[in-house]
Amino acid sequence: MKIIEGGICAAGGFTAAGVHCGIRKNREKKDLSLIYSEVPAAAAAVYTTNLVKGAPLAVTKKHIENGKAQAVICNSGNANTCNADGIEIAEKMSELIADELKISADDIVVASTGVIGQPLEIEPIANGIPGLVRALSKDGCADAAEGIMTTDTVKKEIAVEFELDGKTCRIGGIAKGSGMIHPNMATMLVFITTDAAISAPMLQKALSTDIADTFNMVSVDGDTSTNDMVTVLANGLAGNDEITCEDGNFGAFMKALNTVTVYLCRMIAADGEGATKLLECRVSGAKDIKNAKTVAKSVICSSLLKAAMFGADANWGRVLCAIGYSGADADVNKVDVSFKSKAGQIAVCKNGAGIDFSEDIAKTVLLEKEIEIIIDLNDGEGTATAWGCDLTYDYVKINGDYRT
Amino acid sequence: MKIIEGGICAAGGFTAAGVHCGIRKNREKKDLSLIYSEVPAAAAAVYTTNLVKGAPLAVTKKHIENGKAQAVICNSGNANTCNADGIEIAEKMSELIADELKISADDIVVASTGVIGQPLEIEPIANGIPGLVRALSKDGCADAAEGIMTTDTVKKEIAVEFELDGKTCRIGGIAKGSGMIHPNMATMLVFITTDAAISAPMLQKALSTDIADTFNMVSVDGDTSTNDMVTVLANGLAGNDEITCEDGNFGAFMKALNTVTVYLCRMIAADGEGATKLLECRVSGAKDIKNAKTVAKSVICSSLLKAAMFGADANWGRVLCAIGYSGADADVNKVDVSFKSKAGQIAVCKNGAGIDFSEDIAKTVLLEKEIEIIIDLNDGEGTATAWGCDLTYDYVKINGDYRT
Repeated sequence: MKIIEGGICAAGGFTAAGVHCGIRKNREKKDLSLIYSEVPAAAAAVYTTNLVKGAPLAVTKKHIENGKAQAVICNSGNANTCNADGIEIAEKMSELIADELKISADDIVVASTGVIGQPLEIEPIANGIPGLVRALSKDGCADAAEGIMTTDTVKKEIAVEFELDGKTCRIGGIAKGSGMIHPNMATMLVFITTDAAISAPMLQKALSTDIADTFNMVSVDGDTSTNDMVTVLANGLAGNDEITCEDGNFGAFMKALNTVTVYLCRMIAADGEGATKLLECRVSGAKDIKNAKTVAKSVICSSLLKAAMFGADANWGRVLCAIGYSGADADVNKVDVSFKSKAGQIAVCKNGAGIDFSEDIAKTVLLEKEIEIIIDLNDGEGTATAWGCDLTYDYVKINGDYRT
Repeated sequence: MKIIEGGICAAGGFTAAGVHCGIRKNREKKDLSLIYSEVPAAAAAVYTTNLVKGAPLAVTKKHIENGKAQAVICNSGNANTCNADGIEIAEKMSELIADELKISADDIVVASTGVIGQPLEIEPIANGIPGLVRALSKDGCADAAEGIMTTDTVKKEIAVEFELDGKTCRIGGIAKGSGMIHPNMATMLVFITTDAAISAPMLQKALSTDIADTFNMVSVDGDTSTNDMVTVLANGLAGNDEITCEDGNFGAFMKALNTVTVYLCRMIAADGEGATKLLECRVSGAKDIKNAKTVAKSVICSSLLKAAMFGADANWGRVLCAIGYSGADADVNKVDVSFKSKAGQIAVCKNGAGIDFSEDIAKTVLLEKEIEIIIDLNDGEGTATAWGCDLTYDYVKINGDYRT
């Protein structure tokens, strides 16, 4: 397996585009993206667990009920959520793009991201669609990744190459996600494409299994969004024998998918609203995986720890505190904690109590951009990893007046 | 019932003091407080639910097992938590103050607040105790309230006068609490005194019942502290017939207690780390009280909503979003939301969808210091109130480098 260029267009038969259609006032900012497969593809998706769900999610769910889709359309700047005409608008988006692509509206995945509760006008989208389809190309991944960004500061894309039955397959993805990100859900917007041949039920199984350890282990601010979804389209053009059960090829596919999703998780966490640091919390020695996950998520979600990491302050008491209130079954008197970055690793807590350590070295470790918070519960075999970011002035700034 | 001066010294027989003993480097900052009843008092307490518990909590729990206490000692600047000798130090604090007061160490409530995981030296406390006892006076409430402050910016004290059996009773309290405050627990440090006569079991019942609607409905940052407790001492000097069952007098006592606790809750939320605004979320129309509480707490805890309130941005979509992920059983299509302050009230969402409203008026409403977020779920009779604060640049600043 190796990382390759091309993102969502790396897989055979996929093209993409992103344009400015006018949902956003800023003409420099793309706001409408398209991903297209030249043949119908197996489709799978996971959705937010928020009771308030964006209208596009309901429409997408209906469209891919048959396990099939051929294109993804997504706008940014407006979430099309909590609007009386939301479903109607999402259906209309699907019909317009399907007409232009000359495919069925039932084969469209539709998504929206942005402000909640403001009516989404169909006109800019209708006007933008012809140009969007004309712009489809094998080089379109960057534009599509840009068109789904909201407060994201960087485009998020990746692709990897792997083999199934001696055939070269590719899988790639783009993501948007910066604020309103929390583990209890499908999480943010992620669109993945692959030319591997895999049945829709096995594709859904792969995705649902994978997100439990990836997108559901990312938190930026503890707010679970209304519009999040992760979709995968698999068009089979790589020519491998279709994966229809949990065999070795399924394992190889899972591994490639996981490489893509972990990469995107780390990018999303690192680009958390206002973030200056990526935090990775690695828990081992838990009674089981469930307890390990509970601890990892609690630590990564602690506002106090996040602010301490922003200040490069080795305030490990806040790690212990977050373990203590996590609800996990853990013996707090056995906990070891250390901080690690490319500048080194420093142990700060042993058996639940502080140990002597050099504040200077700790500072050097914590001034890096990627910090690992390493927790050994010394109480079993369970392990888990969660990703998050620091809490900064800019998070407050970005969210203090998001709508203007 | 009326609000009176004196705080924890308003009740007959109680005196208090606060001094600088040297736990903190800043000599201007008091760091050791004492509350003393001239006769033994019935005692009740509730404690944090965090698995990591400060050593003083274990010692206090043991001391008041018999339902009796006569004095409270509390230091700030060090939490005496996650230290190997924590219990020993907390016991030593109790013994030293008991010796000086010539009472039993078993009648001491001991508490600590501040940084976790740094050994607490007994010397400054031992040296400070004689002066602390000499300073005891009926005017000592302000000093005691100051001695328990950490990142608090204002002293928090209140007292009220009420009648039982024609006897005038008083109940008063002081609180510290600014960061690391979250509903799933006993919450922050609060010391309450009263001269009403009430048995220890009924006092415990009154306290445990009250906090479910008061201190457990306050959130500043979602972090549940390791050292929180609320204690009440009732010395009976008002001369009323001792309350021993849930009669009318118990109801009158509960009402007076609730006046004190709600006042302190509001003060704690308003003084949340970095806060510029007090947020009060009032939920009605829930299927039951449990669902109403779940919704109120979820809304008050949303980082995105808290940041929007800081920016006086009427971003009601974030209210809907927080209701949606709260886990409450609610129909999101029936939800009405409005914002209210002394500048007026403005409806922003009806039946789960946005309505036309004046952004100018909304801004005027939200620029006030106390904001009510009013939610009607239109789905039943359950009501609840939660308190919190906005999320600001200063929260990040305070917590980015707390230890230095």
